[in-house]
Amino acid sequence: MGSTQARIAIDAMGGDFAPAEIVAGALRAQAELGVEILLVGDPQQLADLIKQHSSSIQVEVVPAEDLVEMHEEPLTAIRRKPKSSINVAMTLVKEGRADAVVSAGHSGAAMASALLRLGRLPGIDRPAIGTVLPTILAGKSVLLLDMGANVDCRPKFLEQFAVMGTIYAQYVLGIEKPKVGLLNIGEEPSKGNDLALRTYELLEQNPRIPFAGNAEGRDVLSGNFDVIVCDGFVGNVLLKFAEAVGGVLLQILREELPRGWRGKLGTLLLKPNLKRIKQRIDHAEHGGGLLLGVAGICIISHGSSQAPSIFNAIRIAKEAVDNRVLDRLQSQYQAESPKLSPKTEATALDGE
Amino acid sequence: MGSTQARIAIDAMGGDFAPAEIVAGALRAQAELGVEILLVGDPQQLADLIKQHSSSIQVEVVPAEDLVEMHEEPLTAIRRKPKSSINVAMTLVKEGRADAVVSAGHSGAAMASALLRLGRLPGIDRPAIGTVLPTILAGKSVLLLDMGANVDCRPKFLEQFAVMGTIYAQYVLGIEKPKVGLLNIGEEPSKGNDLALRTYELLEQNPRIPFAGNAEGRDVLSGNFDVIVCDGFVGNVLLKFAEAVGGVLLQILREELPRGWRGKLGTLLLKPNLKRIKQRIDHAEHGGGLLLGVAGICIISHGSSQAPSIFNAIRIAKEAVDNRVLDRLQSQYQAESPKLSPKTEATALDGE
Repeated sequence: MGSTQARIAIDAMGGDFAPAEIVAGALRAQAELGVEILLVGDPQQLADLIKQHSSSIQVEVVPAEDLVEMHEEPLTAIRRKPKSSINVAMTLVKEGRADAVVSAGHSGAAMASALLRLGRLPGIDRPAIGTVLPTILAGKSVLLLDMGANVDCRPKFLEQFAVMGTIYAQYVLGIEKPKVGLLNIGEEPSKGNDLALRTYELLEQNPRIPFAGNAEGRDVLSGNFDVIVCDGFVGNVLLKFAEAVGGVLLQILREELPRGWRGKLGTLLLKPNLKRIKQRIDHAEHGGGLLLGVAGICIISHGSSQAPSIFNAIRIAKEAVDNRVLDRLQSQYQAESPKLSPKTEATALDGE
Repeated sequence: MGSTQARIAIDAMGGDFAPAEIVAGALRAQAELGVEILLVGDPQQLADLIKQHSSSIQVEVVPAEDLVEMHEEPLTAIRRKPKSSINVAMTLVKEGRADAVVSAGHSGAAMASALLRLGRLPGIDRPAIGTVLPTILAGKSVLLLDMGANVDCRPKFLEQFAVMGTIYAQYVLGIEKPKVGLLNIGEEPSKGNDLALRTYELLEQNPRIPFAGNAEGRDVLSGNFDVIVCDGFVGNVLLKFAEAVGGVLLQILREELPRGWRGKLGTLLLKPNLKRIKQRIDHAEHGGGLLLGVAGICIISHGSSQAPSIFNAIRIAKEAVDNRVLDRLQSQYQAESPKLSPKTEATALDGE
């Protein structure tokens, strides 16, 4: 990976608005973020789309003959369709031709492909999907994980999520000693379900984790925590709720603000400010989840992603590459937990 | 229970703003809702507070010498303090002197007291806390349960929550055939954690439940479901997040709306509309959770409840009493599941 520019492989065929919106977001990212884009998918469709944007754009197209459909069983599809766009994109990372993958396609398939093609990092039993959300404190974000990769978790999985989250917060979010929280139903260590109670002990004892105690639902966006871990079931429910609630709030504003003549005039005056509010609330901005724990940088975007989301997903990928998240995850885990490292090669391939 | 007016016992000593705010909310409810209030707590303090409001108000005070503090272990406290306000209030219901209890005190203690004093309904293994939230559709609410009473659930608990939720939606929310959803991470029956997968089957097979499939996080406030069941861990995290997110939005409005002179002028013009928006968003309005599955009507309010929340909690209690929710829960379960009914007496007392 000697390139100075991050090279991002894009699964151009995955997502509700693929390939047009995916290509649009990717081309903008190449122009504005200084990344090198590799568009993976149907060469003819992609060439046509690139031409529509500008005849002068130089972007590499990597052909992929197939794609995984949303209704397919992920593991089966990934195995049966080696030439699907997600598999081809993942192989580019495996072979060192790309530094990261971005996909808005079938998220289960992206995970399966990452696991089978790239394998897990040493010391990690289950990769997790991490999502960075803005908090109520300006400029302060929170990393939540797992957002849906693992619906039934063991305490040690959550402990690993916390270690990975800590490293991500340190090197990408730039927080030297991130506050790591355990999502729970009360502040006290005695609160929670069986998983939370047992995880609390592990987090408290692990010197790698700057554990700051339980985080309740109300703490997620408070800015009091930099990293919050939970199982993928709770995380996914919460994330989808959070994304939808923004729309609910905008709907309330749309209904209530323009009432009466004062309302109509006031709303008119506030137009630019309302636009900024919409941007702050809009979920499209968060771009996607980072698959932490596989031996490569993978960003899993929403199926409904349009160009701005893809652009943001590529930005997240670039930040992870530029800050060498993968090296740090790998080396820190190995350095502090050497007994876990020999498993790497075996687990990386155990599905194949 | 021959009284025409619902008689509501209020744990006047429970909550962060007790007894002043509790009394204020209760007196307003008596005046406006046509309910009979029984204030349970320190007679002197309560008499003083009542006098401050008006010398003409007639409200019954039931003395209670003790109270459960927030830090106490609930079951122990309930047993050691038979004369605590929550226990005295619950006893009023048990003895038929009140139809319902409202408490903003220690929620675990309120649950323990309800279980020990009143017992469970026939056929119910675990009572659940149900909360009614507004949806994006005007005038349409959704009942979510469990919001935190049971952090580790078995599929049959969730099935019972669904039956209770159905009855509540039918008789209190007035929806003949409520759409009942299972909170999950995908729409397909094959999605979810072990609990969700096994619960799906039970809900689908139960003829009492108008099961409408899986509800994702984004569906909670969409108005597509009337009742959504989940375990108390997920429910509590979600509820606390939902309550906080309103504050986050109001904060964003406060920061962004008055920017620039147009912003300041526009905000001034919109003052009444913004007030209405605040009301729609403000969590205080939902009043509290209904403890479904015990042999009595119990409303568990937020510890942070002030007078408006207490007023709303009493309204919820009154609606449950007036619509004879308890009789319907009891008779419907017994009628359709006679084998479960003999357990009643035993389980009602099993902790004592």
